[in-house]
Amino acid sequence: MTTNSQTTRLYHHPLSPFCRKVRLVLGEKRIEVELLEERYWEGGPELLRRNPAGKVPVLRHNGMLLAESQAICEYLDETVPQPPLMPKVPSERYEVRRLCAWFDDKFNAEVTQPILQERVWKKVMRTGHPDSRAVKSGLKAIKDHIDYLSQLLETRRWLAGNTLSLADFAAAAHFSCLDYISDVDWDRSEALTNWYATIKSRPAFRSILADQVPGIHPAPHYAELDFG
Amino acid sequence: MTTNSQTTRLYHHPLSPFCRKVRLVLGEKRIEVELLEERYWEGGPELLRRNPAGKVPVLRHNGMLLAESQAICEYLDETVPQPPLMPKVPSERYEVRRLCAWFDDKFNAEVTQPILQERVWKKVMRTGHPDSRAVKSGLKAIKDHIDYLSQLLETRRWLAGNTLSLADFAAAAHFSCLDYISDVDWDRSEALTNWYATIKSRPAFRSILADQVPGIHPAPHYAELDFG
Repeated sequence: MTTNSQTTRLYHHPLSPFCRKVRLVLGEKRIEVELLEERYWEGGPELLRRNPAGKVPVLRHNGMLLAESQAICEYLDETVPQPPLMPKVPSERYEVRRLCAWFDDKFNAEVTQPILQERVWKKVMRTGHPDSRAVKSGLKAIKDHIDYLSQLLETRRWLAGNTLSLADFAAAAHFSCLDYISDVDWDRSEALTNWYATIKSRPAFRSILADQVPGIHPAPHYAELDFG
Repeated sequence: MTTNSQTTRLYHHPLSPFCRKVRLVLGEKRIEVELLEERYWEGGPELLRRNPAGKVPVLRHNGMLLAESQAICEYLDETVPQPPLMPKVPSERYEVRRLCAWFDDKFNAEVTQPILQERVWKKVMRTGHPDSRAVKSGLKAIKDHIDYLSQLLETRRWLAGNTLSLADFAAAAHFSCLDYISDVDWDRSEALTNWYATIKSRPAFRSILADQVPGIHPAPHYAELDFG
């Protein structure tokens, strides 16, 4: 691949839900991106130069270096308006942002982070063996989250309302990481399973379904589009 | 105070930086608000009805119940435009959001949460004695943050650029909680001290400087406007 400083490039890790959210938004907006895997936990001056917070995602785009997934996604939505991923009405925009925070803060702290920390990061970073109590706590917490989302989907076509939004991509980013290691009990909610099957079939999802992390094999159904 | 369901009411805790951010924005926008202290760690169905995430801040406003501080603040800025707390240019809006996330995510995890957990929450929630290692780790981390912010302020009047924004209030919310318990080494950076002295003298800050948490006395300089 020929690259130059004008190429849009994402420094990322395949199983980071925050990076996946940005990848999904780039895909929806049809922005071509070069993916560069970053072993951010190893630190280093280049990493800190790109993002003083020392983490991924970092998007090099239009001569800027952008960090923080929500700030990146809102910037992309404001500068590449088609298709819109934020509603126009303030109360609806509020609901999208509330749910993005729900996933990136609460769901991440209670579910994604404890499960991935034990099942993925300890293996990738070689920092020890999984602690099954942490995994159990995440698998217990995900049940309440699935029930809450099912309840939202009783009256809404998408998570934040009747239009597809950033909230759906934030949620799908987390669920897809957990689904890679087969930690989502899809039998618990038909509504949520249908929602995920629909969003998973979008072209923006293709690169995510093709992800392979060395030593951690995806669940057999991970890339299937008719799993529901 | 006479109240009715139309009164804007904030369910909060005085030493939550997320609640303080919302209070500062309400103050800047001159929205009168009734404050109701919420012992959110005790749980309960009313708390969950107001916010299924079970935490504060929750703002009752215009017949809605709003949660998640960043979503609330952006909603207030979109619906009560004066004074504006977000710039108009996308790249500047991005920088405001990046820094809000910096404080509410990174600064909170490395500094505010470990220090307040040990020095405030354990006392308020009666869950044990402070662990001095956690406090030390927070006090070590705050040095790097102060240095980073000083560096930003070398070329900017406010944290995210040359206009006052949500980023300043997110930052001031965290610093003011730590300053209440005297955990900010203001001698480390004249630029940051001047920035804080300026923002602290705004009328929106008054209610925060008057806060009193039973059993936890504010530092003697906490409410002084000429401490710098």
